[in-house]
Amino acid sequence: MRNLVDDIPKRSRFKVGMVGRGKGAFFASYHRAAMRLCNRFNIVAGVFSSDPLTCREAGEAFDLAPDRIYTSFAKMAEREVAREDRIDVVVIVTPNHLHFEPCRLFLELGIPVICDKPLVNDLDEARALVRLAERKGVFFAVTYTYCGYPMVRDARARIRAGEIGDVRFMYVEYLLEWGADDLSKLGAKGGIWRDDPRKAGATGSIGDVGTHAFNILEFLSGRRCTELSARLSRIVPGRVLDDTGILQLNFEGGIEGLLWTSQAAPGHRNGLRFKIIGSNGSLEWSQEAPETLKLGRLGQSDLIYRRGQSDMMPEAAAIVSLPAGNSEGYLEALGVLYADFATGLEAGPTWRTSVATPIPDVVEGMRGVALSEASIRSDARRGWVSFPNG
Amino acid sequence: MRNLVDDIPKRSRFKVGMVGRGKGAFFASYHRAAMRLCNRFNIVAGVFSSDPLTCREAGEAFDLAPDRIYTSFAKMAEREVAREDRIDVVVIVTPNHLHFEPCRLFLELGIPVICDKPLVNDLDEARALVRLAERKGVFFAVTYTYCGYPMVRDARARIRAGEIGDVRFMYVEYLLEWGADDLSKLGAKGGIWRDDPRKAGATGSIGDVGTHAFNILEFLSGRRCTELSARLSRIVPGRVLDDTGILQLNFEGGIEGLLWTSQAAPGHRNGLRFKIIGSNGSLEWSQEAPETLKLGRLGQSDLIYRRGQSDMMPEAAAIVSLPAGNSEGYLEALGVLYADFATGLEAGPTWRTSVATPIPDVVEGMRGVALSEASIRSDARRGWVSFPNG
Amino acid sequence: MRNLVDDIPKRSRFKVGMVGRGKGAFFASYHRAAMRLCNRFNIVAGVFSSDPLTCREAGEAFDLAPDRIYTSFAKMAEREVAREDRIDVVVIVTPNHLHFEPCRLFLELGIPVICDKPLVNDLDEARALVRLAERKGVFFAVTYTYCGYPMVRDARARIRAGEIGDVRFMYVEYLLEWGADDLSKLGAKGGIWRDDPRKAGATGSIGDVGTHAFNILEFLSGRRCTELSARLSRIVPGRVLDDTGILQLNFEGGIEGLLWTSQAAPGHRNGLRFKIIGSNGSLEWSQEAPETLKLGRLGQSDLIYRRGQSDMMPEAAAIVSLPAGNSEGYLEALGVLYADFATGLEAGPTWRTSVATPIPDVVEGMRGVALSEASIRSDARRGWVSFPNG
Amino acid sequence: MRNLVDDIPKRSRFKVGMVGRGKGAFFASYHRAAMRLCNRFNIVAGVFSSDPLTCREAGEAFDLAPDRIYTSFAKMAEREVAREDRIDVVVIVTPNHLHFEPCRLFLELGIPVICDKPLVNDLDEARALVRLAERKGVFFAVTYTYCGYPMVRDARARIRAGEIGDVRFMYVEYLLEWGADDLSKLGAKGGIWRDDPRKAGATGSIGDVGTHAFNILEFLSGRRCTELSARLSRIVPGRVLDDTGILQLNFEGGIEGLLWTSQAAPGHRNGLRFKIIGSNGSLEWSQEAPETLKLGRLGQSDLIYRRGQSDMMPEAAAIVSLPAGNSEGYLEALGVLYADFATGLEAGPTWRTSVATPIPDVVEGMRGVALSEASIRSDARRGWVSFPNG
Repeated sequence: MRNLVDDIPKRSRFKVGMVGRGKGAFFASYHRAAMRLCNRFNIVAGVFSSDPLTCREAGEAFDLAPDRIYTSFAKMAEREVAREDRIDVVVIVTPNHLHFEPCRLFLELGIPVICDKPLVNDLDEARALVRLAERKGVFFAVTYTYCGYPMVRDARARIRAGEIGDVRFMYVEYLLEWGADDLSKLGAKGGIWRDDPRKAGATGSIGDVGTHAFNILEFLSGRRCTELSARLSRIVPGRVLDDTGILQLNFEGGIEGLLWTSQAAPGHRNGLRFKIIGSNGSLEWSQEAPETLKLGRLGQSDLIYRRGQSDMMPEAAAIVSLPAGNSEGYLEALGVLYADFATGLEAGPTWRTSVATPIPDVVEGMRGVALSEASIRSDARRGWVSFPNG
Repeated sequence: MRNLVDDIPKRSRFKVGMVGRGKGAFFASYHRAAMRLCNRFNIVAGVFSSDPLTCREAGEAFDLAPDRIYTSFAKMAEREVAREDRIDVVVIVTPNHLHFEPCRLFLELGIPVICDKPLVNDLDEARALVRLAERKGVFFAVTYTYCGYPMVRDARARIRAGEIGDVRFMYVEYLLEWGADDLSKLGAKGGIWRDDPRKAGATGSIGDVGTHAFNILEFLSGRRCTELSARLSRIVPGRVLDDTGILQLNFEGGIEGLLWTSQAAPGHRNGLRFKIIGSNGSLEWSQEAPETLKLGRLGQSDLIYRRGQSDMMPEAAAIVSLPAGNSEGYLEALGVLYADFATGLEAGPTWRTSVATPIPDVVEGMRGVALSEASIRSDARRGWVSFPNG
Repeated sequence: MRNLVDDIPKRSRFKVGMVGRGKGAFFASYHRAAMRLCNRFNIVAGVFSSDPLTCREAGEAFDLAPDRIYTSFAKMAEREVAREDRIDVVVIVTPNHLHFEPCRLFLELGIPVICDKPLVNDLDEARALVRLAERKGVFFAVTYTYCGYPMVRDARARIRAGEIGDVRFMYVEYLLEWGADDLSKLGAKGGIWRDDPRKAGATGSIGDVGTHAFNILEFLSGRRCTELSARLSRIVPGRVLDDTGILQLNFEGGIEGLLWTSQAAPGHRNGLRFKIIGSNGSLEWSQEAPETLKLGRLGQSDLIYRRGQSDMMPEAAAIVSLPAGNSEGYLEALGVLYADFATGLEAGPTWRTSVATPIPDVVEGMRGVALSEASIRSDARRGWVSFPNG
Repeated sequence: MRNLVDDIPKRSRFKVGMVGRGKGAFFASYHRAAMRLCNRFNIVAGVFSSDPLTCREAGEAFDLAPDRIYTSFAKMAEREVAREDRIDVVVIVTPNHLHFEPCRLFLELGIPVICDKPLVNDLDEARALVRLAERKGVFFAVTYTYCGYPMVRDARARIRAGEIGDVRFMYVEYLLEWGADDLSKLGAKGGIWRDDPRKAGATGSIGDVGTHAFNILEFLSGRRCTELSARLSRIVPGRVLDDTGILQLNFEGGIEGLLWTSQAAPGHRNGLRFKIIGSNGSLEWSQEAPETLKLGRLGQSDLIYRRGQSDMMPEAAAIVSLPAGNSEGYLEALGVLYADFATGLEAGPTWRTSVATPIPDVVEGMRGVALSEASIRSDARRGWVSFPNG
């Protein structure tokens, strides 16, 4: 119950090289905050821009030694491998379309990789990374943040323990509002790139948030999606990529599913919600109220489970930081992932079995890319398609 | 603000002939309670069973004159039309598969009809009733109960007034749990007939609750569905009819929709919920917490509208019975419909324009039947089909 | 599970004489609606005004026989006792300061009485009614509406069954907003009389809603209040009577309590909420969301009980009308009381033991009056006082 | 909108000496986590135990230089002032009864102090610290964590801007469950010391959580309490100090208040909730759902304000770290305070005016101690007492 607030000696921290943006970059700064919170990582090297001045300013802000501020990931790779005190892991938080090359390079060099989702924009690239990672056996993690929430893991553990009986149907929605407005108001940083296929990839809402929603269903149930039928919509006039998506899903074992995404739903901030329906109970969770998990039971009172209480499942209780009532939030969830990554990095070659909950790896990253690819195929045919394998 | 609790002189009430079951019949008894509450109807005649003894016991329980307790609707029709003090309206609350004949007969005789939903089980029959009702010009209402909730009407009025901008997407779910269990436990009255195609019709969850959910979308938006793609599922082993359905919908004006039904979702009692997404706001309502309506606004605070307050829309305020804070519930919603019906009956030939909110009529009833028919066609083809017209 | 919607033969209904207002009278009309809903009472006689014309109009609206429309309760009493088909019970819903005389007279004549709360405005009068009712042994009920909610009774039954361990502390609040505004805006019917000591009695918020809140604590726990310390406040400039009250309470068995009332709390419509704290659990209920009851458990998940489900306590399950998910509301709660009254009236002399849940009687009515009296004494002394006995 | 996640150069951080416990100490570890999160402080020296071995182990865990790990705060004070690279600020997170001496000593030496609440256990000591701090003009902050929540500050700003009209009544409750059980089960760290007057001070629930609740009312309204009437209760058998308290409060300007604390309320984890009632609106907030603020408006819809949206008040928007929908929690609130402290420390002598929201200082700390003292006096007299001034 002391996961992120436990006092960790500084010297047991991992040396991080960061590939991403500096000041003002949203997600990069969340990763940095989560690393500080979990207290197992020190940024010692980085590439923050291809512009030398911008890059140096950012590096200095992080107090990096001048010779470890690089203007390209290739240089960073080359120089760092040559150092005695080389980085232990690279964290890649660049825009989506700039993930592939650094991932490939650091994997080739045997340097562990932590990469933001979606892994890449192209399924062939994703498959190449999967094969490379397998061949190298190197640690490779993808930051599916929402799997770091204790009550999501509590749900997973309860499902596995049979608390809702046989899983029969899985529903997930991920609704946001930022795309409801005229995109030109958003500006370059605010999200307009998310409607640009060269940067965002071939799908809009599916690639952006559908991948999270999809990942959480496979995470919760332990079942793989085998088929899907997708409808990709542009409900906002002028959109290039889908702002809204409906996916019908079939999973192993005959489980059915429904996934709904929208970037154009006013009144929804970061509205990820799931409902897993079993033969005698349903589990519901909402990312905007992440501290509780609701169990609806056939003909009986509902149970409201709460993070930090004595009746949590052990797998979830192990990652709790604060007592019930003192809310944890988004940064703690990301911090939990980083804490798991630290455990995995510490374990070395046995990293996959070092933690109770599977680390979201390159295969999970690849499946997110496959989701986009299959959705486009299905939407074009207005029908069902097989879910692509690795 | 005194709709159902206002004191109505007894002599202004309509004389009702009831075709349905007596003691122990769930929905029939709700109709009777709603009629008492709204205080505009007196049951004076009825058919409650084909068994004379059962029928007489039921009729006596309602203090009917012995000569107005009938053992068949045909006899009731024949004798009542011959009376000076004949019934003003017939209320039909028999099982679904026994709606058509009495509807047809009373329409033919020019006697106003109030019929429970779904109208009938067969689209041709539904179309026949539509044509007959048109030809006769007689009052014909279908009890889509949920349109009687003040906050549903408030939502409708706000959408029409443009409060959420352009409607872009409509979502509705209707989840129940009774079918999650082994159906043989339910017994004849408890619901097992709902899985029998001869009684329930050709669909399960779609016909039973999908019709309500569908009706509410058309009611809220004033737009007709033009196309749909349905997936009818049996997630409970052994089910004959669909216990779960996913419908993708296209409406006039390019509005898209999603409708999800399940009779096998533990923890859900009567879980009808909608979310209507517009260009600058979303409206959400849940049947299990019917007193409030949530408006999510782009980038701003949510508004929680509440029945009975001064900022209700006039169309909705007009049907309120109790002040805010003194909850109204299901029977009030049904009572509101009956109060509207009384106004319509009072108006005679101009009944359609006698109330601010459209009375759910035989066309709406027919569309519910069309929904089942189209869903089956679509599911068989695994693709999109046109929504059938009258 | 069919309490109010069950089909009751008309001839088993009780004949009611009503003393109160007609068209437009709020509470009187709720009583009439609740009687219709529960279907056990017929209004056959009444006094609706001292003005003959107004009175006759009201009586005609209820279809009363002209000779049973009276212009004074004294005349009604005199004539009705002389009739073969005399009224079975009188329902008194006049303004507070006009309760005593009719109560006294009908009791003297041995006619059962149902009286709105507060019983009277004066403790001596209340005690006189208690003694008279005891001497006569006649049925006398006070309409503490909130004891008619199934989940309030469920809470009572759970407390009695020891589900929260030993009761240690009881909290209740009753907050409304109507008095926050300038009272002169409200007009005669809207509530301005509630700040007039000649009509409302010696207290404002305490007499108006504090009596309900107090009654519910004694009802839930079965413990009598023995001492209290009151602070009566006028937080709205210009108020004569208390618009806000804080009462600290001691109950038998060393249980402590806190009661907070306000008529000047914007955003609160009819905000009655309680929280009963025991040694291992807390029960919470809110009148504005009356269908659920929350049980907070020491170190464990919360339970949300819901009306109409299989895990209700039998005492509460017995008064349910609709299945879970089809909301009951305020009128059902009042209807439950009337249904209990009908059972009591049917039982005759053994009426007190004819129902599982105690009928709120003249003693409970008297205790509400005692609450006002003791609060005034305590507030004047700024200290604790004994709670007056009968 | 980037408060805690903004990238701050390491070299602009303040050097902290910590007086408190190491591994396993709950609150000390939260302070350390909040400092990491806000990224403006580096712990460089510390006293973690009077036992040299324990102390050294803790210091090493924080990678302190061996010569800056001290076994007494007196030694730390003596040696640090002599260093060129001396600490910029001392953070005191010892048990309550060990606050006074280090506060006094560091103030005397002119070293800024951050001290956990309650300030001390004795009012004379508190007054001495107030005078000393005034005389020295040194930065002195008390960690009233809950003032760091953005929506608490949003409430404060709305109240000041007149959004609810004139403040008329303030309610706050702070309910916990840990003390409901047999205290001997809790063990030394778990809370048994909280019932020991030598360690916890003269009050139990009042000193422990009532001080937070009281502070928040003064913080929100900007009004000082002038009088109170307290009831200190022991509802759990065997308790020495109050486990439950009811405080009636009078504030400047005729505002009334009610404060309720309990450490023995099963089902309540860290249940701090307030409701501020004005002439035309009420503001409500709950610590366990800290991301929203509810505004109830007279006769109108409720507004649900949410952290991170465009309609926040500027004072609150300035301290937000994550976008709406990505939850912030308890550590962010504490981090906000530390971020403010950093701004104050940076400002030097003008620290009080360096931030938009007042830093909780030694006077606020003293008022918490005064609350306990006055509560005891009032409870003994069963009546009202003046609130002591500095």
